[in-house]
Amino acid sequence: MDDAAVLDWPLGLQLVATHDMLAEGIHFTPDCPPADIGWKLVVVNLSDLAATGAKPVGVLMGAGIGAGRDAGWAKELVRGMAQALERYAVPLLGGDTIRSGPASVLALTALGSVPAGRALSRTGARLGDDLWVSGTIGDAGLGLEIALGKRTPDAALLKRYRRPQPRLALGIALRGIASACMDVSDGLLLDASRLAGASGLSVAIDSSAIPLSAAARASGLATASLAAMGDDYELLFTASCAVRSAVLATAVECRTPVARIGSVASGMGMTIDGVETDPTGYQHR
Amino acid sequence: MDDAAVLDWPLGLQLVATHDMLAEGIHFTPDCPPADIGWKLVVVNLSDLAATGAKPVGVLMGAGIGAGRDAGWAKELVRGMAQALERYAVPLLGGDTIRSGPASVLALTALGSVPAGRALSRTGARLGDDLWVSGTIGDAGLGLEIALGKRTPDAALLKRYRRPQPRLALGIALRGIASACMDVSDGLLLDASRLAGASGLSVAIDSSAIPLSAAARASGLATASLAAMGDDYELLFTASCAVRSAVLATAVECRTPVARIGSVASGMGMTIDGVETDPTGYQHR
Repeated sequence: MDDAAVLDWPLGLQLVATHDMLAEGIHFTPDCPPADIGWKLVVVNLSDLAATGAKPVGVLMGAGIGAGRDAGWAKELVRGMAQALERYAVPLLGGDTIRSGPASVLALTALGSVPAGRALSRTGARLGDDLWVSGTIGDAGLGLEIALGKRTPDAALLKRYRRPQPRLALGIALRGIASACMDVSDGLLLDASRLAGASGLSVAIDSSAIPLSAAARASGLATASLAAMGDDYELLFTASCAVRSAVLATAVECRTPVARIGSVASGMGMTIDGVETDPTGYQHR
Repeated sequence: MDDAAVLDWPLGLQLVATHDMLAEGIHFTPDCPPADIGWKLVVVNLSDLAATGAKPVGVLMGAGIGAGRDAGWAKELVRGMAQALERYAVPLLGGDTIRSGPASVLALTALGSVPAGRALSRTGARLGDDLWVSGTIGDAGLGLEIALGKRTPDAALLKRYRRPQPRLALGIALRGIASACMDVSDGLLLDASRLAGASGLSVAIDSSAIPLSAAARASGLATASLAAMGDDYELLFTASCAVRSAVLATAVECRTPVARIGSVASGMGMTIDGVETDPTGYQHR
């Protein structure tokens, strides 16, 4: 096999490229099932593609396997990656596997395509736009607390943390509808303030509109705390009020629930239920 | 900044993608100057592009910084990367920097372009083709021995190891001339046997034709030992005897010396000066 992959590129498509790493002890605990790590390595990168409205073209993987890991662990890691790649029909284009010293460090580049000029970005939000988010918020954060032994086990929440889903279909369908888009990885509140800030604007959030699962509602945590947890990998986007029905129809078509949780306002920063709020003040971890 | 980079892609070009990692303790020693590590991370990937005849389009970097490294170390690493990217006029498209546990692990994806159907690959060597290699062989391996304190210091040899040069101009110029091409990273002999093997053929090498620097000749090592050392990052390629003058003219044009070191033969494996040889038997390290 050659060291490099060669791909045809159709006329009129732009190339989208993103790179994210996962490190043992930082992004996953040593006892995390390796197949789940492999899955997540793929999905966090596909989620970055989804946020641009890109269709995945392929990935290149770099697996640095820690000294304490045997071939079985590496095989499970690759199995989890393969499951995610198969689930989303994305080819593995290349990469390498090395021994990386004491801890495992995993890197992935995801390549995608988007019709020229149609990519979504963080910038582009306009004053008065609606703010939307897909799915439910906080479940993955609760799953992390379960993984750390801080909360009563719940298989569904743990799965939300360990097997996130990239919102690829929604991202593609939002081309030409959303004015700005990003994926929620560092907590809804912090990411919402970043999204508005990227366009030089602020964001006003209605906390009662933040979509929560029944399990999250039963967690005993305040909505703002749930919205400060990370790892949701939902899409957060803005769109003009004029396309509100198009957003809702798109969500139905993609079988991905979306909720309108606020709007883009003038100035900088963020308000929650009308109160100025520092999103970093809600950092849950 | 968005998590993903979006690039225009001109009609008629294919996308070339490659990914290589460098790990502390495996690919570089803990005392290696971080700027040299950054340089090498870029160049080993650009060398993979060179081997396909691709023109670099950009890179995505993932730097996992070991726990014992301070901000100054990371800054030097990035400075070395930036030097290489500037030297070869390649933009940084994205990436991330994380803390990676005890040891540093560095990942890079390089993207390149090549006119459709013109990419060089390892396969394509034909019976009777000449075998060529660029530059000189073994200098980087001697540089490694110097870095390890096993050999008398020599700044030029150490630089060949720590600051390799990707043969980008030669790779591009060999499109349509070379029948097969790869870069030499694991030792000339082993890589030559792989190149021929990829086309189901063998290779006959004339050891007296292997290009050596004056420093390598003075090293006291046999040519076959030098040709078993790694990290040369020279281009190894085959071409029909009919284009011998075109190869030589191309080399002059690119200011990159090339040497005709043998030919592609029938069967499998390798002969050196007519004697069947197992290239792995010459593993220097």
